[in-house]
Amino acid sequence: MKPETRERLVETARRLFHEQGYTATGIAQILDAAEANSGSLYYFFPTKEDLLLAVLELYKDLLQPMVIQPVFERVSDPIERIFGVLDGYRRQLLAAKYQFGCPIGNLALELTNSHPAADNFSAWRRAIEQCLADAAGRLPPSLDREQLALFVLTTMEGAVMLARTYHSIEPYDVAVTQLRDYFDRLLKDGSDWSSPRRRTKHT
Amino acid sequence: MKPETRERLVETARRLFHEQGYTATGIAQILDAAEANSGSLYYFFPTKEDLLLAVLELYKDLLQPMVIQPVFERVSDPIERIFGVLDGYRRQLLAAKYQFGCPIGNLALELTNSHPAADNFSAWRRAIEQCLADAAGRLPPSLDREQLALFVLTTMEGAVMLARTYHSIEPYDVAVTQLRDYFDRLLKDGSDWSSPRRRTKHT
Repeated sequence: MKPETRERLVETARRLFHEQGYTATGIAQILDAAEANSGSLYYFFPTKEDLLLAVLELYKDLLQPMVIQPVFERVSDPIERIFGVLDGYRRQLLAAKYQFGCPIGNLALELTNSHPAADNFSAWRRAIEQCLADAAGRLPPSLDREQLALFVLTTMEGAVMLARTYHSIEPYDVAVTQLRDYFDRLLKDGSDWSSPRRRTKHT
Repeated sequence: MKPETRERLVETARRLFHEQGYTATGIAQILDAAEANSGSLYYFFPTKEDLLLAVLELYKDLLQPMVIQPVFERVSDPIERIFGVLDGYRRQLLAAKYQFGCPIGNLALELTNSHPAADNFSAWRRAIEQCLADAAGRLPPSLDREQLALFVLTTMEGAVMLARTYHSIEPYDVAVTQLRDYFDRLLKDGSDWSSPRRRTKHT
């Protein structure tokens, strides 16, 4: 059994799960689209769940080169990097005409009983948390960066869902604008605190 | 054909779509669970899509009596009403052990090509927008209430998705806490503006 066949099966399953959903994608369709036979499939993936785990693993491998690095190379400000990552999902929504959304979010909602997608979300959150750590001096000292990173993910996932539902970029842009307003308020609060001349503590 | 049969079909489909998803629910299973025959089903609902539309209509009818009114009767402060509605989804997540989430959000993500769920979201947004209108005097005058109401929905949907994925209430609570912090900052801004002694405009 060739490793290329395994790769082709995983990539085909990834695409079909994203485009149609996990439940709606049949094994026969995957075999057909990947031009593979069922022997190869069952050799590498005894169950559909095993194939799903490989797809989630592939997304984990793609997170840095596809989602994070292109933004980090272009943008240096850590806060702008966060909004740069969010802009990537905006581009995806527009390119796919609101059809597909976030692949991990879709799988997460479909899989009510097993939750392997949680690891993918956690890797995403760590990337955002690193940006917040890099901007720590400009944010309020009381800020819980882990919580704010989780809130950024919450906003992105909710916004992608609503853009798809309304077949419009507007709900996505509104969510990012409101999140930006929240960040502006946090940054204003943070810089007040860090500027000694404006400190009013103990007066 | 009895109207009770129609009602039973819609309620059964509502429950099964919520528990298993739209694609994963077969017509045979709906007939079995509703103790109806296929003649009745096709009389009322020529296609599965027609049944889906009836389910979304039922959710629209349930929004006020099930989601909004119980909170509004218990809570009078308009801002607290918003967080009271969000608390309702928290209770649902806990009661269902993170299995089901928001029924409209699930359907919205599953239905990539048709978007009847948008009307359901819009009715929800109007209820939140009314709360913001009732609290207008305490919020910044520049605030776009329609946008903030959409952001509250974005937060709720994203937070329900993440609570389900992590099988934990923590992501939901974190999202509501961050949203509360954002509201606190808006309210602080709003009351600063409305307090004449602290106005610094034109100085």
